[in-house]
Amino acid sequence: MTAREIATFVRGEISGDEGVTILRVAKIEESGPGDLTFLANPKYEKHVATTKASAILVSTSFETKQVALPKGLTVIKVPDPYVAFLQILKLITPMPDPFPKGVHPTASVPASATLGTNVSLGAHVAVGDNASIGSGTKIAPCCVIGDSVTIGENCLLYPNVTVYHGCRIGNNVIIQAGAVLGSDGFGFVPKPDGSYEKIPQMGIVVLEDDVEIGANCTIDRATLGQTLLKKGVKLDNQVHIAHNVVIGENTVIAAQTGISGSTKVGKNVIIAGQVGIVGHIEIADRTVLMAKTGVSKSTEPGVTYWSTPAKEHKRALKIEVVLRSLPELAQDVEELKKAVETLNNRLVNTKP
Amino acid sequence: MTAREIATFVRGEISGDEGVTILRVAKIEESGPGDLTFLANPKYEKHVATTKASAILVSTSFETKQVALPKGLTVIKVPDPYVAFLQILKLITPMPDPFPKGVHPTASVPASATLGTNVSLGAHVAVGDNASIGSGTKIAPCCVIGDSVTIGENCLLYPNVTVYHGCRIGNNVIIQAGAVLGSDGFGFVPKPDGSYEKIPQMGIVVLEDDVEIGANCTIDRATLGQTLLKKGVKLDNQVHIAHNVVIGENTVIAAQTGISGSTKVGKNVIIAGQVGIVGHIEIADRTVLMAKTGVSKSTEPGVTYWSTPAKEHKRALKIEVVLRSLPELAQDVEELKKAVETLNNRLVNTKP
Amino acid sequence: MTAREIATFVRGEISGDEGVTILRVAKIEESGPGDLTFLANPKYEKHVATTKASAILVSTSFETKQVALPKGLTVIKVPDPYVAFLQILKLITPMPDPFPKGVHPTASVPASATLGTNVSLGAHVAVGDNASIGSGTKIAPCCVIGDSVTIGENCLLYPNVTVYHGCRIGNNVIIQAGAVLGSDGFGFVPKPDGSYEKIPQMGIVVLEDDVEIGANCTIDRATLGQTLLKKGVKLDNQVHIAHNVVIGENTVIAAQTGISGSTKVGKNVIIAGQVGIVGHIEIADRTVLMAKTGVSKSTEPGVTYWSTPAKEHKRALKIEVVLRSLPELAQDVEELKKAVETLNNRLVNTKP
Repeated sequence: MTAREIATFVRGEISGDEGVTILRVAKIEESGPGDLTFLANPKYEKHVATTKASAILVSTSFETKQVALPKGLTVIKVPDPYVAFLQILKLITPMPDPFPKGVHPTASVPASATLGTNVSLGAHVAVGDNASIGSGTKIAPCCVIGDSVTIGENCLLYPNVTVYHGCRIGNNVIIQAGAVLGSDGFGFVPKPDGSYEKIPQMGIVVLEDDVEIGANCTIDRATLGQTLLKKGVKLDNQVHIAHNVVIGENTVIAAQTGISGSTKVGKNVIIAGQVGIVGHIEIADRTVLMAKTGVSKSTEPGVTYWSTPAKEHKRALKIEVVLRSLPELAQDVEELKKAVETLNNRLVNTKP
Repeated sequence: MTAREIATFVRGEISGDEGVTILRVAKIEESGPGDLTFLANPKYEKHVATTKASAILVSTSFETKQVALPKGLTVIKVPDPYVAFLQILKLITPMPDPFPKGVHPTASVPASATLGTNVSLGAHVAVGDNASIGSGTKIAPCCVIGDSVTIGENCLLYPNVTVYHGCRIGNNVIIQAGAVLGSDGFGFVPKPDGSYEKIPQMGIVVLEDDVEIGANCTIDRATLGQTLLKKGVKLDNQVHIAHNVVIGENTVIAAQTGISGSTKVGKNVIIAGQVGIVGHIEIADRTVLMAKTGVSKSTEPGVTYWSTPAKEHKRALKIEVVLRSLPELAQDVEELKKAVETLNNRLVNTKP
Repeated sequence: MTAREIATFVRGEISGDEGVTILRVAKIEESGPGDLTFLANPKYEKHVATTKASAILVSTSFETKQVALPKGLTVIKVPDPYVAFLQILKLITPMPDPFPKGVHPTASVPASATLGTNVSLGAHVAVGDNASIGSGTKIAPCCVIGDSVTIGENCLLYPNVTVYHGCRIGNNVIIQAGAVLGSDGFGFVPKPDGSYEKIPQMGIVVLEDDVEIGANCTIDRATLGQTLLKKGVKLDNQVHIAHNVVIGENTVIAAQTGISGSTKVGKNVIIAGQVGIVGHIEIADRTVLMAKTGVSKSTEPGVTYWSTPAKEHKRALKIEVVLRSLPELAQDVEELKKAVETLNNRLVNTKP
């Protein structure tokens, strides 16, 4: 593939050797002859002068004169170099299909289960009674699909995933390895002797279409009804979703965040890593929660929060600025106390 | 089942149509004709006026006149509506049994293992040499039970659980999917060249009766001796318990909390989510640790702590109140400095 | 084995009954006759007077006169009692080998896979096409090794581990149960309608020699290239490593810490539990990050950091000291405001 063909494909503006052959794609600091690379994050601009790539995707706002470009580097300008890079990546790099073909002889599938066409089940998969798996869905080795679970079409379940009985999964859902869907919610009633009685967890987990669940996530079944992740929700690894939580369309949640029981999260919310949210509150649409934030109250739509307990982000930054010089502030107060004491004494002395 | 029968069963005081038939139970905002619902959390009181349920469990302190009750809603007053609701829930809703019956032909059980009566082993379960599994215990597919492990009676192990060699589990223990018991403690001795030598982890994990372990929890084996969870301990999902930790009776720990090595936690302690506790300290009986608290020192019995590093809760709240207006406090100090400066100048001028 | 033989083995200085027989090793508070114990942490010094052990390893700096030693306790002084204890531990306690011998008949191994000599594969292991497993490596039940994965010699993989396709593991690597290597990085491009397009994750995970990975850790594959853990890196349980992260030699990371995408961590770094690190920064060699620290900027070599956002440790402690008495500081400021007001009034009155 030539640089010109690539420029045409991504509708970019090309300068330099249009005929150079592109064989691979690579990160800017690791690329060599025959590679197409890209510059999206300004942090990596320092690598442009030394890259050995044959061609580079840059933003239309990139000033080619501001950097001494390596001789022979073909430049393709596009509105979003990273997105263009991904389009080329998918075009020229064949993605290996890591899933098994067909039903492995060691997979355990009861007669009561229903499989669509072109379903793949890896070695040692265990399917429960009356489970239903849609056409084109691929399930990797050692996954356990509980009784009466329904899984839609064209889903990918990576190894060692557990889906408890009764849960429902839509179409085009991806579940990374080790994730658990439908475990019992954490519900106990204290008894007079200090021990606890378990509250039966009778509900299920529902994942709508296009949801992706990260590795080793845990999503508890509802006490009654559904724990629900709506269309397009994306969870990073080790996210914990408690019973009866509802998460709105296209909300993304980064790693190691936990959401407590019955909280409702809106749509297009962005939640960073290691965030904690208490139960029974509402996170409004388009809320942004920065990393490690602890949220104990419902939020306002479109507002960014940070810190524990959560504060509006700019306010939290102002507080942090003062916090950083708190020892000096305390010193100032000590000196003020002395100064006022001195003034007091002098005033007494001047008052005859 | 009629509302009158339900009222009798939970020893409640009934008003309205006592003969209405109850077919199901449901949350207040989702209930319809034939449903019994409940009001326990005041946050949900707004739903009472519009519920379509046939009957509702409310607290004895609930004033029926304060809310415009839907016409035809039968009201049953009880001391604790949620507990009464759970009793009815268990009575009228058949819980599905998600565990396999008997020993699946693909389960791997060596001759040296001992199984009690009515033991269930799912597909692809692997049992180790000399392991012992008590009567009535059910183990779901793809669980791995190590050599010489002993598991008591009537336990439930959900799919993909790992129990390392030598660990001991009591009776009526529940372990949710993906949990790991008995992994090596994190112990290394630094060597002069900057690398680390692994400390052999020779101990085990012991779970006493009635313990519940959440999905994807990790409990490390002791270096020597036991990592011990006493009777009735309940862990939520993704909790991490390090080597040689001891946790007292009926202590409950919410999701994503981590406890470092050799720390001793008392009984009836309540630990919220995302709490971190350093090693080699003691958490006293009935301590309460609020969400995200970081504990670096031993605690006092019955005291509630919050923040990082942990502070007595009411004190931490007072600090937080000031913290929230820290920019204004700093502004006040700046103005005081100017005011004192002005006073100083004036005093100099007035002193002839 | 006699105390004298032990003293000779660890090159210690012995006093007391040199001929007493040592049968076992034990923690100081749990030891009895025939046991060798040790005192390394001063917190446990209180147990010395009452220990029933036959012999104790203490530091050469330990003053035997400062504690009333139990009659008949043989004392062995060494420079590092804990390391000496571990040497004895390995010498006199046979470690059980929890791994299966040979290839279990239920393990699924395609003809295209390559196994070295003395490879052990447990029950229900699933090996992918063209995978290669080095001599002496032991893989416990229900592990899933993806297509084209290469694993070196003498590795230990505990149960239910997942290694995705294409990942590469060096020699002498230990992976605790439930860990996931090579899951897709969390990468999505927002689309105009608010939904997200998945970025293909084409890279791999590489673990160099002597790495140890804790239970239920997750390490994402690179978008392009490698997520790389260099020689001797040790991860505790439930650590999350995002795509394209590089971690230098002999860096240790405690439980529940998360590192975001493309961050480079140096060598001999020490990261405590529940730390969070943002993406695209550099953690310098020998950095120390204390528990729960939130790191948003690159660090300086050899410096210790604490708090969120991360601050130099001693500075953070000074801030914390003031923070703890923030209500009193605010009170002081209120009183200063009144005092200055009073001074102002008096000064006005004195100025005729």
